[in-house]
Amino acid sequence: MPAVPLTRAAVEALDAADELAYLREEFALPQGIVYLDGNSLGALPRAAVGRLRDVVEREWGVGLIRSWNRHGWIDLSARVAALLAPLVGAAADELAVADSTSVNLFKLLAGALRLRPGRKLILSEEENFPTDLYVAQGLSALLDGVSHRLVPRAGLAQALDESVAVLMLTHVDFRTGALHDMAQWTRAAHRAGALALWDLSHSAGALPVDLAGCEADLAVGCGYKYLNGGPGAPAFAFVARRHLGVFETPLAGWMGHAEPFAFDPRYRPAAGIARLLCGTPPVLSLAALECGVETISRAGVARLRRKSMILTDLFVRLVEQECPGAGLALASPREAERRGSQVALRHAEGYAIVQALGARGVIADFRTPDVLRFGFAPAYLRFCDVWDAVVALRAVMERREWERPEHAERAKVT
Amino acid sequence: MPAVPLTRAAVEALDAADELAYLREEFALPQGIVYLDGNSLGALPRAAVGRLRDVVEREWGVGLIRSWNRHGWIDLSARVAALLAPLVGAAADELAVADSTSVNLFKLLAGALRLRPGRKLILSEEENFPTDLYVAQGLSALLDGVSHRLVPRAGLAQALDESVAVLMLTHVDFRTGALHDMAQWTRAAHRAGALALWDLSHSAGALPVDLAGCEADLAVGCGYKYLNGGPGAPAFAFVARRHLGVFETPLAGWMGHAEPFAFDPRYRPAAGIARLLCGTPPVLSLAALECGVETISRAGVARLRRKSMILTDLFVRLVEQECPGAGLALASPREAERRGSQVALRHAEGYAIVQALGARGVIADFRTPDVLRFGFAPAYLRFCDVWDAVVALRAVMERREWERPEHAERAKVT
Repeated sequence: MPAVPLTRAAVEALDAADELAYLREEFALPQGIVYLDGNSLGALPRAAVGRLRDVVEREWGVGLIRSWNRHGWIDLSARVAALLAPLVGAAADELAVADSTSVNLFKLLAGALRLRPGRKLILSEEENFPTDLYVAQGLSALLDGVSHRLVPRAGLAQALDESVAVLMLTHVDFRTGALHDMAQWTRAAHRAGALALWDLSHSAGALPVDLAGCEADLAVGCGYKYLNGGPGAPAFAFVARRHLGVFETPLAGWMGHAEPFAFDPRYRPAAGIARLLCGTPPVLSLAALECGVETISRAGVARLRRKSMILTDLFVRLVEQECPGAGLALASPREAERRGSQVALRHAEGYAIVQALGARGVIADFRTPDVLRFGFAPAYLRFCDVWDAVVALRAVMERREWERPEHAERAKVT
Repeated sequence: MPAVPLTRAAVEALDAADELAYLREEFALPQGIVYLDGNSLGALPRAAVGRLRDVVEREWGVGLIRSWNRHGWIDLSARVAALLAPLVGAAADELAVADSTSVNLFKLLAGALRLRPGRKLILSEEENFPTDLYVAQGLSALLDGVSHRLVPRAGLAQALDESVAVLMLTHVDFRTGALHDMAQWTRAAHRAGALALWDLSHSAGALPVDLAGCEADLAVGCGYKYLNGGPGAPAFAFVARRHLGVFETPLAGWMGHAEPFAFDPRYRPAAGIARLLCGTPPVLSLAALECGVETISRAGVARLRRKSMILTDLFVRLVEQECPGAGLALASPREAERRGSQVALRHAEGYAIVQALGARGVIADFRTPDVLRFGFAPAYLRFCDVWDAVVALRAVMERREWERPEHAERAKVT
């Protein structure tokens, strides 16, 4: 028996019952836009508007150098880390906020190789986020004997043998949203004597992550997606406490020194996670990240995950209901439990369809070769946004709007 | 015959004749403060206030992900680099703006070692900026056979032999302000078959630097000192064009890929300087840096240098005139041509003296063990500020204000 068709009224009822509905007001969102790209760049928390003005005009402008003490810039990175840690199942003293995801990954991969002397292989999957693979490639080219091996997801288990120093995986696949079982892969890595390093860029802030419960060794993640830290916000790095005492990063910088203000010519790493820091952090961007993390932290990531699963389920159902025969193939796992907060569809004209949707005020993104990617940030999306997005998608498909020449032209950033 | 004593009226006449006097108005400076720490954190360019509001509220808040194209975030780093390049005698296609100074130094040192196969030594001086030494130490610990050697400045020439891959020096000594002769040391490095890598953190924006004229190979520098880019602003990295074709950085990230949006699992470095980029840049901090660099660029670094030399000369003369017998020893070169835009004094009670000066509204800084460091940012300092600072210093010394217990207590950031 076919399911009862969903109506806009039914969708509005979901909004009326949404325990997180109040949260949308805490974000500044443009009029007339359905924003389904919070997985690329999270929306602006209203708190960040005032905070940035204050950081610029009062802390920098008036406080000047004194603000390192007076306004706590020196502890800002640690404060953000302490807020963020519970969102990923880490303790505050296991998480550092600094640099970019790529730079942090470099630190952790290099440190991981030192923890597994005699092993020289970084194992990952071909579908992993490209920049993660580039970092592994760059490190392999630098270090004699070190190599990285990429296998298809289906071949991972077989490739995970005693030659592997570190298994590097991304929790949520950036294209399809498919979730790895973190606990299972971490156990598998440990059985092989390897470390498990997780990229949480597409997880943090959208779904609960339990680094401690999974006994994960290392992790990195991004501040500007579901954590809403602003464009290019600093990233984070996690090192399990059991490794911290001996963990060494080759990116030794003054912020990670045991006594940054001793101006000691010899590097002596800080006792704990602070050794993951390197140079001076970009304070303006870090202050914005604090607002984003604070907002998400207050909402609670378990509640966000519940809403996210309903949002993505609704989208999948509505696409099937409204766009049958449009040639849009579901590229994400059908079960909400098995995907992150995003849904991917495949279509040969994906790029132009995404542009045509944009012209209708629905912002999604395209990932080569044929993936239309829709992110559902539960913090600020309404269920009626999902409805409106699918109505727009139906119109684009029915009217073949992707054939308009202006939608085929590629922009620099896709 | 002793020099005619300087009076405040004479100093005010210098301000009246100052061709750069107009520039102070382009900075937001706190009332009642003489800020002599622009060498640690440059002042806030007024343009950055509006720019940051716009970047936050309109570009991030309204433009969201579209701003990578619509507001040119994707080119922002290259735009800032193009503005900055002439200030250090580089071409726009030889300079990248990204990451922190320390992270850039790591990229360049690793790249330098690859350019000198068979050589395994990084040579620097003991007095170099500590974080630079930490980066060399971290890289040496990572790479088999690579080592770094620190010698006193007087021993550099002898140590610069054919075992050296790269000579790493800071143009302006962070403590004393003493200038290295870039052209001479670069020639000496080349005669030994080594590369010359310069840290321009305390030079860029305060004095002309001629990387091309000196035939320097590599350089890094800081965005938040005389470039006024804001706390923790992104840094820059220079690679001379003749090395770029073969230059490899181990910090391979998606922004440095030949086709960042191809999502190619293999890293292929961009053709030119863009290969120095790694992860996503902190856009808010980068936008503030653009304002700082633009302001300095418009003023012209040759004019800034002329004023800076008069400022520091005036300070040295006034300290000698107003504080004789106070036990303040000049630690900087006496000739303005031989120092950067800062003057260092030594005193055993230096820390507490700097605190006492702060209580009188004169902000300088202290560098262990006994250095009082006064930075003279020519873009926004008046000659009468120098007068007022020395009058305050005289009062602190005459009244032994450093003996007050509140001035001896150490803050986190010194």
